[in-house]
Amino acid sequence: MPPTEMPPAAPAAPAALAALPTPTLLLDVPRMDRNIARMRARLERLGVPLRPHVKTCKSDRVARRIHGGVPGPITVSTLREASEFAALGYTDILYAVGIVPAKLPQAIALRRAGVGLALILDDVEVARAVVQAAEAADVTLRVLLEIDCDGHRSGLAPDSAALIEVADALRSPRILVDGVMTHAGESYSCRSDAALRAMAEQERAAAVRAALRLRAAGHPAGTVSVGSTPTALFAEDLSGVTEVRAGVFVFFDLVMAGIGVCRTDELALSVLTTVIGHQRDKGWAIVDAGWMALSRDRGTASQPVDQAYGLVCDADGRELPELLLSSANQEHGIVARRDGAPGPMPELPVGTLLRILPNHACATAAQFDGYHALGAPGEAGEWWARFRGW
Amino acid sequence: MPPTEMPPAAPAAPAALAALPTPTLLLDVPRMDRNIARMRARLERLGVPLRPHVKTCKSDRVARRIHGGVPGPITVSTLREASEFAALGYTDILYAVGIVPAKLPQAIALRRAGVGLALILDDVEVARAVVQAAEAADVTLRVLLEIDCDGHRSGLAPDSAALIEVADALRSPRILVDGVMTHAGESYSCRSDAALRAMAEQERAAAVRAALRLRAAGHPAGTVSVGSTPTALFAEDLSGVTEVRAGVFVFFDLVMAGIGVCRTDELALSVLTTVIGHQRDKGWAIVDAGWMALSRDRGTASQPVDQAYGLVCDADGRELPELLLSSANQEHGIVARRDGAPGPMPELPVGTLLRILPNHACATAAQFDGYHALGAPGEAGEWWARFRGW
Repeated sequence: MPPTEMPPAAPAAPAALAALPTPTLLLDVPRMDRNIARMRARLERLGVPLRPHVKTCKSDRVARRIHGGVPGPITVSTLREASEFAALGYTDILYAVGIVPAKLPQAIALRRAGVGLALILDDVEVARAVVQAAEAADVTLRVLLEIDCDGHRSGLAPDSAALIEVADALRSPRILVDGVMTHAGESYSCRSDAALRAMAEQERAAAVRAALRLRAAGHPAGTVSVGSTPTALFAEDLSGVTEVRAGVFVFFDLVMAGIGVCRTDELALSVLTTVIGHQRDKGWAIVDAGWMALSRDRGTASQPVDQAYGLVCDADGRELPELLLSSANQEHGIVARRDGAPGPMPELPVGTLLRILPNHACATAAQFDGYHALGAPGEAGEWWARFRGW
Repeated sequence: MPPTEMPPAAPAAPAALAALPTPTLLLDVPRMDRNIARMRARLERLGVPLRPHVKTCKSDRVARRIHGGVPGPITVSTLREASEFAALGYTDILYAVGIVPAKLPQAIALRRAGVGLALILDDVEVARAVVQAAEAADVTLRVLLEIDCDGHRSGLAPDSAALIEVADALRSPRILVDGVMTHAGESYSCRSDAALRAMAEQERAAAVRAALRLRAAGHPAGTVSVGSTPTALFAEDLSGVTEVRAGVFVFFDLVMAGIGVCRTDELALSVLTTVIGHQRDKGWAIVDAGWMALSRDRGTASQPVDQAYGLVCDADGRELPELLLSSANQEHGIVARRDGAPGPMPELPVGTLLRILPNHACATAAQFDGYHALGAPGEAGEWWARFRGW
């Protein structure tokens, strides 16, 4: 990469960082803004709107930033997220985990409160329960059928008889069979730009094919929702798609860098930690960020470059060559050189502040109740709250 | 095991479980009580008091239960835990992560509030900073030297010159060099009862040796603190030891079962989850507990029996033979048969409630804000709060 393309880490007055308790979750707001701008520019070029997945950020401040300051359309992974964001003024919400009968009362309560909540399902018995609940409550429910585009997880095959069977089970004046949604989770296993482009096309084609079949069977099916961060950034054509979902792009992480969709100097999240000791004969510095701070995620373990529990940067966010958080206990991390890396271990006296770039932004952010914002003019030092739970 | 030894899972009225949101963290209180009784009986026989590590439970209700209802001596992994427990009336607290200068003001504030807080350290520069801070604040600080008994993490070698050097750097009227602490973290790698007994003796011997050297050098060093759940349960002699620390014994988990210190029917924690769909051609049931509920911990991956993301039980807590949470996304888990297991996949209709036994109790519990108590007479259905953060 030419050096001119490398965005610097957000500056922070050393005194400001030194005043924070460690571990603390840092959010480099200028980097996040660049990541958002990149995704928005890409989708604008393809002519498709973004419905960000807010399971990554779980934060009103971040979600609004994606939509230029307003509570735009979002995707959520729990009804708790739906309720929290609805209370903050978000009205267009897709709950992107298969609904079950026991959760219908909560979904209906959100609809009654005026939230434009869409549900997903892939099972004929669930479809019947949704019809029954909507009719009993006299509430209209918007439903998308979940499509399996890559064998990754849930969903109906786009060419299956079951697709039409489930949609037909939803025929009711109280149900809008609004279309389809799919998620190319297997894109995380792609190892080349060509594979990512092919996966994006596979995701698009599966969703569009399913929607066409639904329309042919007399269902409205106007919505064709696809997405994952890798496919969103590598799709070359989104014909027939009406919205793209993606979440982790806002922060990026080492797994995304390993897939090749970002550089490590674009990662907006890091964990600030303090050196608390050494085992110098082993080349170890001990820090106060363990798995309670970073999470146990080892998503890079299956990638060509294993980043252990994270890449180590200095307090200003500059990567320290070949230093990793090599292992993690609950509140202890061990910083060491990557296996076989040349050169000496730096001194790192007790009290030294470091930043750790995480494998998986969703998992690391979930370990904290909020973000310490860095580098945004007028916003540096602010605390941006997250929520959690179900 | 003879069937008479198998404690049943705590009963729960099906209607009571069905009314809970999923995923929810269940705590089988009678099992927990049996686990506590086992540890207490063992340590009473060895004549050494217990200082439980409350980083596992982070709960007043659980911590009091260990001490028969009173706020007894505890071990903590963060100063946040120290502050939370101090506010609840706990006055004898060991902060078992190396202190750093930036955290001394918070430690001194706790001492000034009347908390009998002990700190640990293993570095001469930190020792000097502690002396300086205690003298400047005119507060007496109790310090234990951290001993490395197994090469696992932090600490001074018991026979090192540095041990005496650090202790001597603490000479001050404001510092009590109260002794030593060590943690045999490598006990988690033991694969036989004999290896566990040997590790317990190695831990004891290292701590006692270090304390003797400190006393010979003129330091009081009355406290000799050792512990990990495996060594606490396998130690045969604790001569010279004045207290034992252990945390995970209260709940146990699949990692502990894999080491051989408990049976899977003694695990007190589980995650209640709902079946939300199927991919029947693959033998998968999809549930609403992913890594956000179970954590990303894969501690059994390095054990002889890999339990994936957890063992699957029915809603009453009976193990379903050979069913595992085979993979986990953020809010989705995939239930499947263990590789090569015989027999068919059970039906598990959408809406079925299951319980997942976790790999690592500390990590799974940390994903929740509290426990839903099961099975305690008069306590069933209670919500026992946890806290978190730093």
